[in-house]
Amino acid sequence: SSPMDRQNRRRGGYVDFPHLSAQHRELMLDLVSTVETRLESDLLPSSLSPDVQYFENESGNSQAALHIRSGDKASPIDLVLGSWIHCELPSGALDITTISAYLKSSTDAPRFLIEFLQSSPTSLILILDLPPRKDLVLHQDYLDTFYGDTQLDKRRQELAKVPEVRPYFSSSLYIRCVCSPTAILVSINCEAGGEGRMEEIIRDHVGPVAKEVLGIWLDRCACGGRVVEVHERADLEMRDRLIKKKTIEIDLGSSLPRLFGPDVAGRVLEAIRDAFNT
Amino acid sequence: SSPMDRQNRRRGGYVDFPHLSAQHRELMLDLVSTVETRLESDLLPSSLSPDVQYFENESGNSQAALHIRSGDKASPIDLVLGSWIHCELPSGALDITTISAYLKSSTDAPRFLIEFLQSSPTSLILILDLPPRKDLVLHQDYLDTFYGDTQLDKRRQELAKVPEVRPYFSSSLYIRCVCSPTAILVSINCEAGGEGRMEEIIRDHVGPVAKEVLGIWLDRCACGGRVVEVHERADLEMRDRLIKKKTIEIDLGSSLPRLFGPDVAGRVLEAIRDAFNT
Repeated sequence: SSPMDRQNRRRGGYVDFPHLSAQHRELMLDLVSTVETRLESDLLPSSLSPDVQYFENESGNSQAALHIRSGDKASPIDLVLGSWIHCELPSGALDITTISAYLKSSTDAPRFLIEFLQSSPTSLILILDLPPRKDLVLHQDYLDTFYGDTQLDKRRQELAKVPEVRPYFSSSLYIRCVCSPTAILVSINCEAGGEGRMEEIIRDHVGPVAKEVLGIWLDRCACGGRVVEVHERADLEMRDRLIKKKTIEIDLGSSLPRLFGPDVAGRVLEAIRDAFNT
Repeated sequence: SSPMDRQNRRRGGYVDFPHLSAQHRELMLDLVSTVETRLESDLLPSSLSPDVQYFENESGNSQAALHIRSGDKASPIDLVLGSWIHCELPSGALDITTISAYLKSSTDAPRFLIEFLQSSPTSLILILDLPPRKDLVLHQDYLDTFYGDTQLDKRRQELAKVPEVRPYFSSSLYIRCVCSPTAILVSINCEAGGEGRMEEIIRDHVGPVAKEVLGIWLDRCACGGRVVEVHERADLEMRDRLIKKKTIEIDLGSSLPRLFGPDVAGRVLEAIRDAFNT
């Protein structure tokens, strides 16, 4: 393997997920490898510089890895982004692990998003959604095709049955707005059952649902072949660009400077904006 | 009073709410009178025929009252609709009580909606929202103005603190889509505390929140003076008309025929469509 591979592995490359529990790491590896295997011929190699692929703050108590692969020219995939952030905060360790996928305006199919926010071994927030790329109020056919016919809500309902699972409301109203009506936004708290119970919930409930939702996205959205007429693409592009911009602003744009200092954050955000083309 | 007034009173006119509990009735009366007092000079008298103002099914075990007042020509109010439905079903009594208000395209301010679905004296579903009239993903300023600055989410959070209150997910994905990110969609179950506890929750928690949200709507939306340029009104009208059509289709259009038979339902739905101008 190359020196960069070795360096990444030593410092914690993207797919090492060095701070996750065994079940959580296994799930992330499964999701990443499913995406990369299925979309291999669509995706270009990562072009991020090593100091963006992995970065930490001065004291080393905040660490992160970023992995971005843009879609090939002929592919409907815009880009797939994976990241993890690990921070030792006074309140304890915080781990944020994300996979998100964006599509080009040649299709209007939904995006993919999974995000885990873990603030303790027994407390986890999960956001799992195929965020829509159109105003669903105006496009009933789109709602039916991607959210009704796919029975996405059944997956949400299944997970909601687990006693430790509660609906979660993001403090950002914008994040709530960009989610679909079948979005899985839940907090999982199992102080009573401990870390073992969290592992069980990830293996038996979160994992199966996450894999199913990703499967639906790959089959119906990424590879669904739903094509948008050229004259309709401008509106879609405008909406996508706005969402990307807002997402950076609300999410990484506010957390990275806080956790990694302005220099590191500036470098990483520039690389993301580059890849996002915003 | 006129013969029609007397007839309505005997049969259960709209504001009699003959089947609600004391606290629930008091709250509804408060809300209706707040709207009608504040908007008195905006609203035309009801023009519904008596057999639409009150109706029942053949056997008399389903009863309902409907009250629609359209806005005056100069007013930004399109219409205010109030209704109650009471049905004796094999599973028990079902009561649905609603106030909804629509605005004209001269303003883009949100609508108002409150709906109570009560399937037993200790089980209540509440939908309370200022449904947006624009795609919030595209209109951050609109989101800030009506949902952020008004601190609507604080009201949702307050109500969520009551132990018997749980988030509610409508089985209709469309209904979920038309709601705002601060919508109060909750089920309240107090089998343990009984009817007395439900009365307490309505008086001490639901009532204050409902009055505050209605107050925000009256101040900032109905009387907020936010004006839309003439050339932007067509899009707004199109969206409003679609929502009205869908709302009738999903809500009353499916329940009225089932509960009141095709003849009564047909007569009532025609009157609603007339008033809705759809």
